[in-house]
Amino acid sequence: MHPETRFRLPAADAISLARTFGTPLYVLDEATLRDRIRTYQAALNELWPATSLTYASKANGTLALLQVAAHEGCGIDCAGAGELLAASRAAIPPSRCHLHGNAKSPVDLELALELGVGMIVVDSTDELEWLIQKGARTVPIALRINPGVGTSTHQKISTGHLKSKFGIPLLDGRAEKAVQRCQEAGLNLVGFHIHLGSQLREAEQLELGASALVEFAIEMMQRQSLDVRYLNLGGGIAVRQLQSDPPVRVGQFLKALFRPVAARLLQEGVMATLAIEPGRSVVAEAGVTLYHVMARKDIGDYKLLAVDGGMSDNPSPALYDRNFDVVPTREDECDTAFSIYGAHCESDLLFPNTMLPADSQAGDTLQVLCTGAYNSSMASNYNRFR
Amino acid sequence: MHPETRFRLPAADAISLARTFGTPLYVLDEATLRDRIRTYQAALNELWPATSLTYASKANGTLALLQVAAHEGCGIDCAGAGELLAASRAAIPPSRCHLHGNAKSPVDLELALELGVGMIVVDSTDELEWLIQKGARTVPIALRINPGVGTSTHQKISTGHLKSKFGIPLLDGRAEKAVQRCQEAGLNLVGFHIHLGSQLREAEQLELGASALVEFAIEMMQRQSLDVRYLNLGGGIAVRQLQSDPPVRVGQFLKALFRPVAARLLQEGVMATLAIEPGRSVVAEAGVTLYHVMARKDIGDYKLLAVDGGMSDNPSPALYDRNFDVVPTREDECDTAFSIYGAHCESDLLFPNTMLPADSQAGDTLQVLCTGAYNSSMASNYNRFR
Repeated sequence: MHPETRFRLPAADAISLARTFGTPLYVLDEATLRDRIRTYQAALNELWPATSLTYASKANGTLALLQVAAHEGCGIDCAGAGELLAASRAAIPPSRCHLHGNAKSPVDLELALELGVGMIVVDSTDELEWLIQKGARTVPIALRINPGVGTSTHQKISTGHLKSKFGIPLLDGRAEKAVQRCQEAGLNLVGFHIHLGSQLREAEQLELGASALVEFAIEMMQRQSLDVRYLNLGGGIAVRQLQSDPPVRVGQFLKALFRPVAARLLQEGVMATLAIEPGRSVVAEAGVTLYHVMARKDIGDYKLLAVDGGMSDNPSPALYDRNFDVVPTREDECDTAFSIYGAHCESDLLFPNTMLPADSQAGDTLQVLCTGAYNSSMASNYNRFR
Repeated sequence: MHPETRFRLPAADAISLARTFGTPLYVLDEATLRDRIRTYQAALNELWPATSLTYASKANGTLALLQVAAHEGCGIDCAGAGELLAASRAAIPPSRCHLHGNAKSPVDLELALELGVGMIVVDSTDELEWLIQKGARTVPIALRINPGVGTSTHQKISTGHLKSKFGIPLLDGRAEKAVQRCQEAGLNLVGFHIHLGSQLREAEQLELGASALVEFAIEMMQRQSLDVRYLNLGGGIAVRQLQSDPPVRVGQFLKALFRPVAARLLQEGVMATLAIEPGRSVVAEAGVTLYHVMARKDIGDYKLLAVDGGMSDNPSPALYDRNFDVVPTREDECDTAFSIYGAHCESDLLFPNTMLPADSQAGDTLQVLCTGAYNSSMASNYNRFR
């Protein structure tokens, strides 16, 4: 078994924090978060002279966390005006923020222009025409390209296949037409962006897309005289969701992804900034969630525990059938299988078939690992839970 | 085709409301809501001398809506302290509210006792022991029974099967032991409750459960000298989700469900109040959601529209693969298939294969029917959308 890379609280701290602040409780470890960002930066610095790490704040937009990411030198990816305002509230200069989104509204775009956002990642020709009409000629823009490359991840989080809603397709020369349109209209087109999906374990899954992006950029330099200053290879690096998953080696992953790209750019003399935008991979393993058990029911051999949170604080089991490791605070051996349910007014099965001590019962504190990403940011008020 | 029972806005009103208030926008029709409640009440009044209609506020807990339901004479079902507080904020007397929940916390229960809630629907022996320890002898309580009956609905919303997290199982005499425990401890046990699932189209699906509940109540009257004053048959009546679904005839449904129950109760001389607690069935068809289209993309024959809302305002497509009818505001013929995506940073496919006018484009207003239930109440702040 590999050594644990994921943050977890000592049992006594879990019990004490749960009692002090109430449950369900998200706990995020600042040291793990900073360490993770530094691992990324160290890897990037070895691979290319000009790199950029932007944190995808959709994964967890807690203001204190955004401040840590910014303090560590990250840019901030914002999916829409709400995330941009959050970054502003965290006192992060808008010039360090990038605006993303497949369906940006005029409100999103106007706010971004007004604040002086660092970059707009343009996703559609509708959006491009809006910017042209507004005469938005100074804001740096990157075109999100749909390379038409599939990935072997959950279909809800696969985003670079041919029929994806994201980006302007390479297909039929449409991406090139968008470049021409930018050039004609005098927009400040600095480069291109792809993002293929989430929870990718192998750099090979990204390489086809990265290669398509680089070749397209080189063609645009040659055919459209575009000064390519920025290439964003997206995010989507997997995390160690379960103890049984091997840890993802960020350094190795980035090396495998960047080396062929860097070689090709050097060959053509393109000294663009190479950017990546991890979210989950930066913050997931730094977070845990604490619950109190409210009830136990034994129905024959089937043993249920009901906790005081659920799909409102962790929608991933219901949305993506995602599994989590649950750590008890009792010291006894975990020799009994329980199914752990949430408190919402539907099945709300959170953690099926979880091994816990046989005498687990109401009042126990449970700690769920690897909940730093897409838990608080996707939380709802279902049943008007706090 | 059956005549339409679902509320929809005239195209001009949809466009005007969307422009005035911004999108995504929930619109709820008070007349449809009141009409629906009155249909329920009229049906109930014909079937049994003492009936009770409680509105399950988890379906939509908007305060103005709660006020309408209360004004029409409904009690209010509250799943936890948050929904109880919402009912209080809507100026509904707590005595007209019932507290539900499979994992009620001490905070939920203490608030309910403090406010003087009308009934606590006890879901587990852990909860029962908490109430006994608190000496809660005056508050009316009903025991939620798990009859061990399956239903043919989505597994996430099937709640009365043997391994359900909800209720105290009839199995092994455990429900009877809970009755004995109430009697010994001097609790104010008034009766029993079941709820088998949601989106049930046929009363037959509920009858097995209702029959088990009634037989159990009669046995408890005979064996435990329990004065059975209240029997709640739950909710879960389906709605007309799609135009192609036949409307659900509430009167016929309730007649089929109540008649055998009423006959059996008369036979044994049990004059208990018969209660039901619909949520979705009361409010879903009264609500629509309006969006603006932000972008159109044609990828070969595959046509995408991206709207300015998504899984944060309507999580049902992602959670339950639920389908919805989308009505354009353009008058042209709906002869072209579009896939409609939300604005969130993942696939967020909302309405696949939707027939709309061929020239649908950015700026259009779309109206989605039957979104009055489990949309606003399950809404999230994902991507910090408003």
